[in-house]
Amino acid sequence: MANLTLDPDRLLPADSTLRPIARELYDAVRGLPIISPHGHVPPQWLADDVPFADPTSLLITPDHYVTRMLHAQGVPLHDLGVGQGELSPEASRAAFRLLCAHWGAYRGTPVKLWFESELVDVFGLDLAPSAGTADDLYDAIAEKIATPAFRPRALYERFGIEVLATTDDPADDLRHHEKLAADPTWHGRVAPTFRPDKYLEPATPAWNGLVDRLGEVSGADTGTYAGWVAAMEDRRAYFAAHGATSSDHSHRDARMEPLPVAEAERLYAAARSGAITRDEGDALRRDLLFQMARMASEDGLVMTLHPAVHRNHHAPTFDRYGADVGADIPVAVEFTDALQPVLSAFGTSPGFQLVLFTIDETVYSRELAPLAGFYPSVYVGAPWWFIDAPEAMGRFRSAVTESAGFTKTSGFIDDTRAFLSIPARHDVNRRMDSAFLARLVADHRLTLDEALDTAVDLVVTNPRKAFRL
Amino acid sequence: MANLTLDPDRLLPADSTLRPIARELYDAVRGLPIISPHGHVPPQWLADDVPFADPTSLLITPDHYVTRMLHAQGVPLHDLGVGQGELSPEASRAAFRLLCAHWGAYRGTPVKLWFESELVDVFGLDLAPSAGTADDLYDAIAEKIATPAFRPRALYERFGIEVLATTDDPADDLRHHEKLAADPTWHGRVAPTFRPDKYLEPATPAWNGLVDRLGEVSGADTGTYAGWVAAMEDRRAYFAAHGATSSDHSHRDARMEPLPVAEAERLYAAARSGAITRDEGDALRRDLLFQMARMASEDGLVMTLHPAVHRNHHAPTFDRYGADVGADIPVAVEFTDALQPVLSAFGTSPGFQLVLFTIDETVYSRELAPLAGFYPSVYVGAPWWFIDAPEAMGRFRSAVTESAGFTKTSGFIDDTRAFLSIPARHDVNRRMDSAFLARLVADHRLTLDEALDTAVDLVVTNPRKAFRL
Amino acid sequence: MANLTLDPDRLLPADSTLRPIARELYDAVRGLPIISPHGHVPPQWLADDVPFADPTSLLITPDHYVTRMLHAQGVPLHDLGVGQGELSPEASRAAFRLLCAHWGAYRGTPVKLWFESELVDVFGLDLAPSAGTADDLYDAIAEKIATPAFRPRALYERFGIEVLATTDDPADDLRHHEKLAADPTWHGRVAPTFRPDKYLEPATPAWNGLVDRLGEVSGADTGTYAGWVAAMEDRRAYFAAHGATSSDHSHRDARMEPLPVAEAERLYAAARSGAITRDEGDALRRDLLFQMARMASEDGLVMTLHPAVHRNHHAPTFDRYGADVGADIPVAVEFTDALQPVLSAFGTSPGFQLVLFTIDETVYSRELAPLAGFYPSVYVGAPWWFIDAPEAMGRFRSAVTESAGFTKTSGFIDDTRAFLSIPARHDVNRRMDSAFLARLVADHRLTLDEALDTAVDLVVTNPRKAFRL
Repeated sequence: MANLTLDPDRLLPADSTLRPIARELYDAVRGLPIISPHGHVPPQWLADDVPFADPTSLLITPDHYVTRMLHAQGVPLHDLGVGQGELSPEASRAAFRLLCAHWGAYRGTPVKLWFESELVDVFGLDLAPSAGTADDLYDAIAEKIATPAFRPRALYERFGIEVLATTDDPADDLRHHEKLAADPTWHGRVAPTFRPDKYLEPATPAWNGLVDRLGEVSGADTGTYAGWVAAMEDRRAYFAAHGATSSDHSHRDARMEPLPVAEAERLYAAARSGAITRDEGDALRRDLLFQMARMASEDGLVMTLHPAVHRNHHAPTFDRYGADVGADIPVAVEFTDALQPVLSAFGTSPGFQLVLFTIDETVYSRELAPLAGFYPSVYVGAPWWFIDAPEAMGRFRSAVTESAGFTKTSGFIDDTRAFLSIPARHDVNRRMDSAFLARLVADHRLTLDEALDTAVDLVVTNPRKAFRL
Repeated sequence: MANLTLDPDRLLPADSTLRPIARELYDAVRGLPIISPHGHVPPQWLADDVPFADPTSLLITPDHYVTRMLHAQGVPLHDLGVGQGELSPEASRAAFRLLCAHWGAYRGTPVKLWFESELVDVFGLDLAPSAGTADDLYDAIAEKIATPAFRPRALYERFGIEVLATTDDPADDLRHHEKLAADPTWHGRVAPTFRPDKYLEPATPAWNGLVDRLGEVSGADTGTYAGWVAAMEDRRAYFAAHGATSSDHSHRDARMEPLPVAEAERLYAAARSGAITRDEGDALRRDLLFQMARMASEDGLVMTLHPAVHRNHHAPTFDRYGADVGADIPVAVEFTDALQPVLSAFGTSPGFQLVLFTIDETVYSRELAPLAGFYPSVYVGAPWWFIDAPEAMGRFRSAVTESAGFTKTSGFIDDTRAFLSIPARHDVNRRMDSAFLARLVADHRLTLDEALDTAVDLVVTNPRKAFRL
Repeated sequence: MANLTLDPDRLLPADSTLRPIARELYDAVRGLPIISPHGHVPPQWLADDVPFADPTSLLITPDHYVTRMLHAQGVPLHDLGVGQGELSPEASRAAFRLLCAHWGAYRGTPVKLWFESELVDVFGLDLAPSAGTADDLYDAIAEKIATPAFRPRALYERFGIEVLATTDDPADDLRHHEKLAADPTWHGRVAPTFRPDKYLEPATPAWNGLVDRLGEVSGADTGTYAGWVAAMEDRRAYFAAHGATSSDHSHRDARMEPLPVAEAERLYAAARSGAITRDEGDALRRDLLFQMARMASEDGLVMTLHPAVHRNHHAPTFDRYGADVGADIPVAVEFTDALQPVLSAFGTSPGFQLVLFTIDETVYSRELAPLAGFYPSVYVGAPWWFIDAPEAMGRFRSAVTESAGFTKTSGFIDDTRAFLSIPARHDVNRRMDSAFLARLVADHRLTLDEALDTAVDLVVTNPRKAFRL
C-alpha cells in the first residue's frame, strides 16, 4: 500500500542550479497570508460555522473539478451524489470508493496535487488513495471533520486566510456577510462579490422574473431601462457597503458597447415584453455591460471578466443535474476589438479597473499582455479554472511577462468552493511563480533581490492592488 | 565525412536529474510491441510481400514529409519522382542525391530523426547524408532492399508490429486484407480503416460518381438519402467483418448536425441531380457526418476526426501532381460548438467513441482536454502530421494532461506510408513521453511507480482502448 | 545602491550540461556583424551625423516599447515628452526620473535587458536605474552623448552594423540615402524600404491626397487604376535604384486577391471620387496588395507582411498624440486561406519572396511553418514587436523548426528606432538561438558541428537570403 508523502520541494525545478534559487524564493512566500479575491465558498459556512457533513459532500459532490474527470471515466454523476439532497452514509461511502478506485485517472492533474495536499496537510493522513485504502481514508476523514478543529472557522484561521471573497447574486441580502460582520468573535474578512450575469441576458427565459425581483429588492422600477440602471447602481452600493470590492462577469463574448439611448430603451422594452431576438439580446447585453463599466468607473468596484465558455454543453446532463456540474467547455475568445469601446471610454479613468481572465491561452501574449502593458486600468488575471495548474501557470508567466511585466497581473485566485483545497491551490501557485522567477535569476534576467521582491509582491501586493482590497 | 551514430539517450532531457529517470521510464517501454492504429501503408505490400523497388521510391517519392521540404528549397517535385510511374535507375539516383545534398535543410525536423534512425537501425549504415555520401548510401540501401530480410513481412516482424491499420475506401473489396487473413503463414494483424470522406462531400464534382459506385458495391439504392445511409451501414459492417475497428474522417470543419429528415432528403436529391450549392453541401455533409456518428454509436466503430486542413493549397501543384503531395496547409479549428449536437446525442453512449486530432494546437488546452475530461466517449488524439515531432509532443502533454490526465489520450499514431520509419516514429514518441513523465517525477508530481505504470499504459493500454483493438 | 553588471552568460540556459554548449555556440556568433533588414532609424541621423539632443529624447520619448509600460503604470504620455517638440532640460530630466522611479515595472521584460545593456555596454555605466540614481545616470548619459564617440556614425561603426534598412514613404525622395551614397567618407550601408500601406487603403480619408502626391512624384496619372499601378512600379524602381531590397506591408488582414480588372477600375474610380464603402475598400486593398506581389515577382523586391494589429486602440490617445505611441494592440490573424490566391499565382516564381511576420503566435506551427516548409518563396519572419523577447524567441524556434527547419526563417530583425538598443536586441536573439540550438545538441538532435554551422547561418546567411541583401 503506497505511502503518501509530500516532498518539500515539489513543483520546484529539478535542475540543481534552479532548485536552490526557487527554494529561497518559495521560502520567502510560503507562509504569507492567503488573499482569495475570487471564489465560491458559501458565506453561510463561515457565518454559521456548521461542521461538514461527510467526506463525499465535502470533497467530491460539489467540486466539478473532481466529478467531471470521474464522469469522463464512465462514472455517472448520480453515483457521486450530484443532483441529490443529503447523501445516505452508504451513498457517500460508495462515491468515495469510486474516487479512490479511479485515482490513477488524476495523474498529472492539479486535482491530484490538491487532494493529496488535503490528505496530508489538512487531515494528517499518509495513505495514497486506491480501491484498497478508500474505506480507511473515508473513516479517517469522517472522524476528523466531526471535530471542532475541522469546523469552517477553525480551518479559516489555520489556513491563514486574510480575505475571502464570495460570489453573490445582486438580489442577495448578504445576511451571512452581515452576520459575520456583526460577530465580535469573528476576526476574518469575508467580502461579497457582485455577480449580475443573469440580469444582463435579456433574451433568456429567466430574465424577466429576475429583473422583477431586482426591482423589488432595490426599490427601483425595473420596467424601464433607466430603472434597471438605477436598480443596479443601488445594489452595487449595497454590496460596496457590505465590503464588496469587485463585480464579476461572464458572458459568451467580452464585448461592451453602448447603444444610442433610444435604441437601448427600445430593446429593453422589447425584452420586458418577452419579444426580443437573440441578436437584439446580445446587443442589449453589451450595452448593459458597458453600463456596468461606467458604474465601475464611478463607484470603484473592480470589474472582473471571464468570458467565452460554452455553458452546459451536454444537454442531457443539464436537463438532469442543472448548471455547474462540469459540463462547461471553453471556446476561443477575442478581447482587443471587443474592449475597444469601453477602454476608449474608461481605459485611463482612475476609478476604473478591469481584470481580464481567460481559458483561451492564445490571448495572453497576443492581446491581454499588450492591453495591460498600455492601459493603466487593465490587469491580466491569473490562469484559472481549467488552467489553474502548474504547466499552465508556467506558460502564463512566459506569455504575459515580456509585454506586461509582473505588476500588471492580478495575483492568484482560487475560484473554488472546495474550501479545503484553498491552501493547496495557493501553494501550487507560489511554487510555480517561484520556479519561474528562479529561472530569470539563474539566467541573469533578474537579480535575486529583484526576484525576492517580486515573489512577495505577487502574493501580497498584486491581489490587493488588482482587487482594491 | 561525418560518421552517423544514434546516441542511446537521444531526446531524453539533458539535465542530470531528469535523464536517469527518463532513461528508466524509456527502458520500460522501448521494447514493447508497436500498435499502429492509423496509417497509410498499402496493405498490398504485406499481402504480396514484394521487395521494395529502389531507395527513392521507398524513401522519398511517396513521403510528402520528405518531398515538401525539398520543394521549399526550390527542388521541383518532378525531380523527386512525384507524379510519375516507375523511376528509371538514373532518376532514382538523381533524386536521392538531391535529398542528400539538401540534408542540412532538415536540421531540427523529425524527418532528420526518422531518416537517420532508418539508416542506422534499419539499414545498419553509419554515413551521414551529404552530397559526398549520396551514392554510397544509395548503393548500400539498394543492395539491402533486394534481400529477403528487407521484404515487407520480414520488416513487419523485425519491427515488432502487433497491429497495423490501413486506410481504405468504403467501396474497397479489402482483398489484400482477406488474402492476409487467409494466409496461414502470416501471423500479423493488418486492419482496414473505413475512410468515407469523399462520399460525404455532395457539392464536389466527383460525388455523384462515387455514390453510384457505393450503390453498386453495397447493393443499396443510393438514389435516395435512405439508400445512402443503408449503403454506408452495409459497408461499415463489411469493414467490421474484415477487422476494422475505426472510421476516419477529415473535413474542413468538425461540425456534425442532423437536418430534419425532409430537408436532408431534399438536399440529397438536389445533390444527386448535381444542383446543390456549396452551403447546402456543407449542411448536408454535417448531417451525413452526424449519421456516421449515429452508426458508430450502434456498430461500435471508433470515430476519428482530424479536420481543418486547406487541401491542395497550391493550385498548379494540384493540377500537375494531384492530392497528397505536401501542399496541404492547416487552418484554425473549432470543436466545442461544432461537436455540441453530436455529443449531446451520443457523448455518453457506451457504443460511441470519438478520437479528436488537431494540428491547431490552441485547442488542446482550450477545447480538447476539457471535452475529454468530461465526456466518456471523447479521447484526445496524439499530435500528428506537422506536429508529430518532439517539441510538439512536449507541448501536447503539457497542454492536455492537466485537464484530461493521461488516460483520455489516444496513444501514438504514426499516420505514415513510410513503412520503414514506423519504428523510429514510435520510438521518438516513447522517448518524449518518457521525458515528460520524468519531469513530473523529478518535481514530485508523480512517484516513479506511477510514472512507470503510465509510460506502459501510453504505449499499450491507451491505443487499445481508444481504438478498441 | 545596486551595482549594475551584465553577466557574460545571461540568457544562456542555467543547466550545467546545456550552458557550456550554448556558450560555445554563442561565442561563434557574438562578434558577427549586425544585419538589420527592417527597422525605423531615421536615415537623417546617419546622413547628417548630428549629436543626440538629450537622454530622454534619445532613450524614452520616441520609443513606444518604453513609454507604453510607464503609461500602464499611470504615467501620462505627456510627462514623457510624447507629442511635444523639443524638450526643455527640466522636462527631459523629469521624464528620465519617472522612468528610473518605475524601473521595477520592467522586470521580466526585454526593455530591461536592452536598457541595462545600453547603460553598461554603450555608456559604460554601472548604476542600476532607481529613483536614487536617476540624476546621476541622466548626467552621465548627457555628458557622453555630447562627445564625438556618441555621434550616430561613430556608433554605427562601433556597433558593427553591416546593413541597416530604414522604412520610407513611397513618395520620399530618399535624399538622406542619396547623401550617404554620395559621401566618400561613409562606408556603411543604409538601405531604404518601400512602405506603401497608406496608399493601399482607399476607404481612409487621407487616401486621395496621398494618391495625388504619388502621381506627382512618379509622373503617372493616378486618376486611374492603371496609373496607380504605373506610379507604384515607378516608385519601386526608384527605391530599388537607391538600394532597397524589400517592401513592407501591414494591413488588418493578410489577404491578397485580384479583382476582375473592370471591377478594380470601378472601385478605384469610386475611391477617387470619395465614394467607396469600407467593404469595397477592403476588396480594392486586397487587389492592390496582390498587384504589389505581382510587381515583387517581377522586380524582385522581397515582400514582408505583418498584419493584424488594431492600430490606435485608445481613441483619446490617438486624438492627442497621433499614431505609433504604444496604443496598437494585436488581434488574431489568418494566413492559410488569405494567401492561397497569391501563393497559387507566385508561390514558386523565382522572383517572388515573401517574409511573414506575426504577433499571433498560434500561426507559427499551424500556418507559417507549414507554408514555409512547402513554398520556396515563403520565409517565416522572426518574432518581432511584442514578441521580440527571450521567452517568445524560444517558443518561436520550438514552434517553427519542426516543420520549416532553420533555413526558411528570416533571421533577426530589430524593428526599432531606438538606435542605441540595436546591439542589445541582436545580442539577445543570438543568445536565445544559441540556447535553443544547445538543447538540440544536448539531446542529440544535432551534432555540435551542425549547430555551429546553423548558429552562424541564422545571423549571417538567413537574413541575407530572406531579404536579398
